[in-house]
Amino acid sequence: MDQKLLNRFNYLKSLHLDIDMSRGKPSKEQLDLSNKMNDVLSSQSDYKSLDGLDVRNYGGLEGIKEARQLMGDVLGIDYQNVLVLGNSSLSAMYEQIARSFIYGVCGNTPWSKLEKVQWLCPIPGYDRHFAMLEHFGIEMISVPYYNDGPDMDLIEALVNEENIKGIWIVPKFSNPLGITYSDEVIRRLARLKPAAKDFRIYVDNAYALHDFEGDVKLLNIYEEAKKVGNEDILYLFTSTSKLSFPGSGIAAIGASENNIKDITSHLKYQTISYDKINQLRHVRFFKNKEGLKEHALKHGQILLRKFKIVDEYLSKYCSDVAAWNTPKGGYFVTLKVKGVAKEVVARCKECGVKLTEAGATHPYHNDPTNSYIRLAPSYLSDKDLSLAMEIICLSILLESV
Amino acid sequence: MDQKLLNRFNYLKSLHLDIDMSRGKPSKEQLDLSNKMNDVLSSQSDYKSLDGLDVRNYGGLEGIKEARQLMGDVLGIDYQNVLVLGNSSLSAMYEQIARSFIYGVCGNTPWSKLEKVQWLCPIPGYDRHFAMLEHFGIEMISVPYYNDGPDMDLIEALVNEENIKGIWIVPKFSNPLGITYSDEVIRRLARLKPAAKDFRIYVDNAYALHDFEGDVKLLNIYEEAKKVGNEDILYLFTSTSKLSFPGSGIAAIGASENNIKDITSHLKYQTISYDKINQLRHVRFFKNKEGLKEHALKHGQILLRKFKIVDEYLSKYCSDVAAWNTPKGGYFVTLKVKGVAKEVVARCKECGVKLTEAGATHPYHNDPTNSYIRLAPSYLSDKDLSLAMEIICLSILLESV
Repeated sequence: MDQKLLNRFNYLKSLHLDIDMSRGKPSKEQLDLSNKMNDVLSSQSDYKSLDGLDVRNYGGLEGIKEARQLMGDVLGIDYQNVLVLGNSSLSAMYEQIARSFIYGVCGNTPWSKLEKVQWLCPIPGYDRHFAMLEHFGIEMISVPYYNDGPDMDLIEALVNEENIKGIWIVPKFSNPLGITYSDEVIRRLARLKPAAKDFRIYVDNAYALHDFEGDVKLLNIYEEAKKVGNEDILYLFTSTSKLSFPGSGIAAIGASENNIKDITSHLKYQTISYDKINQLRHVRFFKNKEGLKEHALKHGQILLRKFKIVDEYLSKYCSDVAAWNTPKGGYFVTLKVKGVAKEVVARCKECGVKLTEAGATHPYHNDPTNSYIRLAPSYLSDKDLSLAMEIICLSILLESV
Repeated sequence: MDQKLLNRFNYLKSLHLDIDMSRGKPSKEQLDLSNKMNDVLSSQSDYKSLDGLDVRNYGGLEGIKEARQLMGDVLGIDYQNVLVLGNSSLSAMYEQIARSFIYGVCGNTPWSKLEKVQWLCPIPGYDRHFAMLEHFGIEMISVPYYNDGPDMDLIEALVNEENIKGIWIVPKFSNPLGITYSDEVIRRLARLKPAAKDFRIYVDNAYALHDFEGDVKLLNIYEEAKKVGNEDILYLFTSTSKLSFPGSGIAAIGASENNIKDITSHLKYQTISYDKINQLRHVRFFKNKEGLKEHALKHGQILLRKFKIVDEYLSKYCSDVAAWNTPKGGYFVTLKVKGVAKEVVARCKECGVKLTEAGATHPYHNDPTNSYIRLAPSYLSDKDLSLAMEIICLSILLESV
């Protein structure tokens, strides 16, 4: 080991740092961008929605019209195909899987009555997706990512199996790769013909508007599916979690008429309505999709600054021993350090920098190559981020000898 | 038929009224009481919770400390035994049943793997409870109400059956009877020893603070259960739906350590956190349980005025042909019209007054006596309510000959 590097590492260790870089949380600077959202409604406000509801009272299971329109514009689907749900798209997805277990999808056998339920998981992927599937007892099958999306040949082959009931995709600025699916991949996904009638593509469009600058195009998967009469295969999810406030945003599902009818046939027993005041607050603050995009770019500028710090450190110190991506949006950088991911994460921890666990990017926490590390630079101040990146680079260098 | 009554009925029918008295919705006058809640947070606010969280960001699955304290005080349980959940206690209850189906309760067999799941339903009861159970495929067994709560002898006998997994109780101002359970009934419930280890009492304390005046006492069921080491049998639910805004309130579950541990072991896969900004908004507006009670009394004064109109009409016209209760709180009056409930509801509809469907107070919409009608006077203006009550009375008189 290089003694100079080790000395520096030990010096940084002696500072007893406590830097948490494990989760994709917005920074205080980002949260402050939305504070004025809490000024738009007051005791003097008019609380009527476009569809004539008093948003303060019961009713409006599907969400208020203006919120359905806003979220429909984000998802690329008509507002009548949109349900505005609770405060998180993660729980909207969870609940849809729960309904599939208890009632079945569109009249098919409830999954709780099946011997085995399997799911396709492009890797590296989002740890909370995998953890949720595992908790439901769903068997996960890994599918590798290419630069323009998951391996479609493999997916088209695998969906011939009746047990395979779903796939999760993050088509724009995927977590954690940061790639955006090509038109070709979107078209092939939209045309999938799975053996299982209750197979669904869970499109987690968490970063639909989260470009750092400009506008990375994503083909409208719903329109593509509709062209071939295959729109029942899709559930589209998004939320404002990373545009307004995580946990206090609004989430939505967009889907075909059959699917929306199926979902509401169960949802109406679960709740009378979601938080329509918060829906109104969001629409009055953001106004429309353009307003949302403009706001998203402000987030993007802050994030871009952070991503540049990550790239600078890695370029300066680790270009020989690591590979990483430079996404144009989203929240994550995927770092590849051949065979030493666990060791690097452990070393960083030793030095007071908490990273997402190695393996978290793979089903069952099993990265057979022990190479993938998800970096989440958003939450940290520039100063802490620089310190963290120095420690990450030192750790990589020390472990790669 | 009395021609004079019929003439008056036909005159009222000719007015083509459209009065909806079917649901327990607060009136505009009541909603206005809480408008200032939307003034308490602004872009200038401090967003730190007592436990040091920035409520605008991820984290805090259990809810923020001050909201857990507030809801714990309402439920009569320590804040550490409270989870502050989404926007509705109805969905909190739904989700708990869903978890019981998918994962099982505290390590017991998931209900989806059982041949039969049964549930005890005190009647008359809340239609949404019954509809939810029916949708889950749970078999409902009716238990009659006395003046101080459900028939405890019958309940104690029935819970010896392993299939029986739950009972729903609304212990204060029960929906729709408006009765409050006696100390004796609460004690016997708290000491139940069911055959099924995963039997739970779902305590829907929707009207915990909804006294019209004064303070109707309800024994603390959790304390009673704790005395005999039986606290695992309880799930306590409440919400601010009818104190702040329906659909935009905060809901909570209170339960034993074992139960809370069991619930969060699943909940953590479902969501990262609920809407903590709305939790903070509620606590800053209501301050504490006393503040909530004070606010509830303002609602109560409005409701009492409505309930008096109901009682006056019924007393004046129908004392010979109908029986009804005069609750000291809550949202409903139960009207008993022997053998003609469906006919009265149909006649009211004919005359432009929509009531809750006859039978809705019973599992499977089956009131074998055809006698129960739930009256929900809260939403209507005094004028509309008076008109509705005249029509109800006329309908009863015309159908009772």
